[in-house]
Amino acid sequence: MATNSQTPTLPTQSSQTLPTDAKARVGQFMKQLQDQISHGLAELDGVGKFQEDMWERPEGGGGRSRVLREGAIFEQAGVGFSEVWGSHLPPSILAQRPEAAGHDFYATGTSMVLHPRNPYVPTVHLNYRYFEAGPVWWFGGGADLTPYYPFAEDAVHFHTTFKHACDAHHPEYYPVFKRWCDEYFYLKHRGETRGIGGLFFDYQDGQGQLYRGPHKDGLAAIYSNQVGTPQPRSWEQLFAFVQECGNAFLPAYVPIVERRHKTEYGDRQRNFQLYRRGRYVEFNLVYDRGTIFGLQTNGRTESILMSLPPLVRWEYGYQPEANSPEAELYETFLKPQDWINWIPSTPKS
Amino acid sequence: MATNSQTPTLPTQSSQTLPTDAKARVGQFMKQLQDQISHGLAELDGVGKFQEDMWERPEGGGGRSRVLREGAIFEQAGVGFSEVWGSHLPPSILAQRPEAAGHDFYATGTSMVLHPRNPYVPTVHLNYRYFEAGPVWWFGGGADLTPYYPFAEDAVHFHTTFKHACDAHHPEYYPVFKRWCDEYFYLKHRGETRGIGGLFFDYQDGQGQLYRGPHKDGLAAIYSNQVGTPQPRSWEQLFAFVQECGNAFLPAYVPIVERRHKTEYGDRQRNFQLYRRGRYVEFNLVYDRGTIFGLQTNGRTESILMSLPPLVRWEYGYQPEANSPEAELYETFLKPQDWINWIPSTPKS
Repeated sequence: MATNSQTPTLPTQSSQTLPTDAKARVGQFMKQLQDQISHGLAELDGVGKFQEDMWERPEGGGGRSRVLREGAIFEQAGVGFSEVWGSHLPPSILAQRPEAAGHDFYATGTSMVLHPRNPYVPTVHLNYRYFEAGPVWWFGGGADLTPYYPFAEDAVHFHTTFKHACDAHHPEYYPVFKRWCDEYFYLKHRGETRGIGGLFFDYQDGQGQLYRGPHKDGLAAIYSNQVGTPQPRSWEQLFAFVQECGNAFLPAYVPIVERRHKTEYGDRQRNFQLYRRGRYVEFNLVYDRGTIFGLQTNGRTESILMSLPPLVRWEYGYQPEANSPEAELYETFLKPQDWINWIPSTPKS
Repeated sequence: MATNSQTPTLPTQSSQTLPTDAKARVGQFMKQLQDQISHGLAELDGVGKFQEDMWERPEGGGGRSRVLREGAIFEQAGVGFSEVWGSHLPPSILAQRPEAAGHDFYATGTSMVLHPRNPYVPTVHLNYRYFEAGPVWWFGGGADLTPYYPFAEDAVHFHTTFKHACDAHHPEYYPVFKRWCDEYFYLKHRGETRGIGGLFFDYQDGQGQLYRGPHKDGLAAIYSNQVGTPQPRSWEQLFAFVQECGNAFLPAYVPIVERRHKTEYGDRQRNFQLYRRGRYVEFNLVYDRGTIFGLQTNGRTESILMSLPPLVRWEYGYQPEANSPEAELYETFLKPQDWINWIPSTPKS
């Protein structure tokens, strides 16, 4: 298991704004965030207990994986912490951060995917991460919600909670990171978002550029004239923002679980949930940056893939029945929406 | 739906060995192979019927997908034919065939994945494909078997059947393509082969080089001194070989199904089958060349992903019980073996 005392000394950072104990402080926060969330979820579940596995990575570092299975509310809940280092970042990251090439790296993060049993309770994902490599450091992460059944009030609550966390730090954080989330958690081959989104950001290095998405036709184009003059942010400011987002997770998610987990359901809802879980698998294995980073850096496979659902269906040619709740999910909830300013349309009976 | 009369005229091939009706003949064969296999499987199943969907690809071409569900033997059987063309191949292929850059392309193929219900019946995959693009053309494909329970005689039968098909064409085909199959259908993040292998080959363009794998430490190194002087093969020779392999599929697989499909099983075997199906999903979404080609060329998603199993489990930290059939699968059948010269060890009771 990685402890902070084992953290290797990396070359001096060129940025003068990086505290000397940066790695130790972020690593400590990520571990504490895992504690806070796993304790909160175990209390919410009431029945399931987290099984903990400590693991070491041969090339440097390790982690602490916690999995709760067959709980009252959670069919599976995986909450991971890791802190790893090595001689070079994998190609998928160097392509985005060429300045890090040829340097040792340090990376720490917390990530989580929850698969509830009741199809009316949404699946949710959280990940926050921090990297240092030679002259560069950056924060990334976010949280996004994947409902199986459409409840606008849940989407509004989730987004509002994270908007408050963002607004305390920068007025552009929520609008930029909300749209980046819609863009990132998008299954191109399905033409669907993964769910109702939330926040996503990456490569936040204090240089003032908020959006660093990969595509010319992505948010960069949309925002190039709107974000205004880049305002550099300090490491301390970014770390404070990431902590606020991490701490906002339980308030964003727990009320939704409490509202939905006693709703009765039958085979139809269960089958639809199992089918939709297939999209989660498709996203995680085809697109997800964290999964690819883990597999490319020879991470612990069981910990990387504990995000995959315990039971999944695929069904060739499935189409939701017209005017059903399943159709409403596709038509409204799997497309980007302005949930903060959501105006309910004609009520559905 | 693509018919041969719609096939566009591509630039004249520089190779003099390419018949003028090459595309029409291969396309016709691939379609007939789909017929042969889907009729054979429907007869074997006795209950399930194939549902057929014709589809068109906006950029050019289309396909014919056939899916049998909830059969007596097959929980799901997907057999696809496609014939597509366009202005440029996707990056994943151009990286291996830079000569094709800037040229129109034509691609046709048949692919299939069968998911039997009884855990004693192996899952099986087949794919044969043909490409033309500017100055280059090539054949690729193969078939591989993924058992859930270990029966050496099934592995020996499957390999022997394909060895006979290979040996009628070239003495090096079986040894090279068998090892390439072990190398290709390998889940690096699990340290496991997908199953007991079979044949795999790609980029067979008649230039004499049999193995064109991607890695310096792959078969190229092993075979560099063993294959001898490259012997050019004509387009006709390669096409005849591919036809022989395609026609060998039913004789390679059907006797295994007939031997196993009435074996009684319980929850233990079913749960293990569902768990192992997860590896099939991991391979197809993380590594499979055909899946990536399909998704990158804006193929029909439902047809590409009809290889995914109808029901799948993931289980964090699963380990087979010592000295069980499940452990034997991991210890012997998920590692490359010389099945042709297999010598049974001490019989297991």
